Amino acid sequence: MRGKFIVIEGLEGAGKSNAQRIVSETLAAHGIEFITTREPGGTPIAEALRNLWKEGEDGEHTTDKAEVLMIYAARIQLVETVIEPALASGKWVVGDRHNMSSQAYQGGGRGLAELVDEVGSAILGDFEPDFTIYLDIEPSIGLERARGRGALDRIEQLDIDFFHRTRERYVSLVKDNPKAVLINAEPAIEQVSADIQQAVEIFLTSEK
Amino acid sequence: MRGKFIVIEGLEGAGKSNAQRIVSETLAAHGIEFITTREPGGTPIAEALRNLWKEGEDGEHTTDKAEVLMIYAARIQLVETVIEPALASGKWVVGDRHNMSSQAYQGGGRGLAELVDEVGSAILGDFEPDFTIYLDIEPSIGLERARGRGALDRIEQLDIDFFHRTRERYVSLVKDNPKAVLINAEPAIEQVSADIQQAVEIFLTSEK
Repeated sequence: MRGKFIVIEGLEGAGKSNAQRIVSETLAAHGIEFITTREPGGTPIAEALRNLWKEGEDGEHTTDKAEVLMIYAARIQLVETVIEPALASGKWVVGDRHNMSSQAYQGGGRGLAELVDEVGSAILGDFEPDFTIYLDIEPSIGLERARGRGALDRIEQLDIDFFHRTRERYVSLVKDNPKAVLINAEPAIEQVSADIQQAVEIFLTSEK
Repeated sequence: MRGKFIVIEGLEGAGKSNAQRIVSETLAAHGIEFITTREPGGTPIAEALRNLWKEGEDGEHTTDKAEVLMIYAARIQLVETVIEPALASGKWVVGDRHNMSSQAYQGGGRGLAELVDEVGSAILGDFEPDFTIYLDIEPSIGLERARGRGALDRIEQLDIDFFHRTRERYVSLVKDNPKAVLINAEPAIEQVSADIQQAVEIFLTSEK
């Protein structure tokens, strides 16, 4: 039987790594075989694209439009060489970010929604996650947490309005997507973890 | 006044470098200021993408679909940071390859025409060359010439059918494009150079 693709989405500092761990532990407790991925990245080519996008080259940074295509190049490389083969072999995939990140960050944050939708639909066709867990957090709280762990990078240095636009788009995408749930990521980690575990248990029951 | 964008297209060994030189000399003789570009490449980011596409990373090569997006990422980076600013400042641009290469190689050769058309139109909008010179050559002759100069790379190692499909698509694209001309690149270089120069002179007259 084909595996399922579960994706964790959310702003910086929302707790995606913890969520990926909770989902993984829940699947393991049910005896489900799975792999984890992170985007953009997850294959040598995709990681090189991630690095080029984050670091630039010889002082040059990618334009917003080139960024969209590089992220989708990394995504399709990962989907074709890692995610699809895993799902086809019956393994589940627990992803840290997928297409909704492009729709929220590049579409909402950068204002390139039309380009993101056109490229995303041209390259992915009807491939999509079976279940998406969106961790919702006020941008200033998330960024404060991310700063706390010293994880500030290029995107995290963008102005706060960018993250408000990104969050707004996330919330609207989740509302329109019956395969996605919003989890409040602002409470203490124990509470959020319990909510994530419960969401996965409900998804597992619905899949039986 | 806005500059013009002239592009040289054709298979490996068709003589694109010589053509770029002839076009440049003809423009210079008319006192026209210009820059030259090559695709994919032409900026640090775009060259890094070209290199990643050609060489792969840690033994991994790009999938055909990732290749399309990486080439378009390099293209839009070059268009936005080099070609558009040059044209806007009144300089002309003489390009070694542009969008027609993706349509011919990835669209015709790889059989990804729909993806190429959708991504190309989403990312480029109505940006297009003012004049395209397509150098037509039988693939086996072109590859023989390319081999002669030791310039065999990843794409040139593909099977000959790939190049026949690519050439067929080139010819059909040029036929449908009033801003493109086909020049027979098989005769001696003096003849081909004279034909290129004449084509540029005619274009210059039409632009006056």
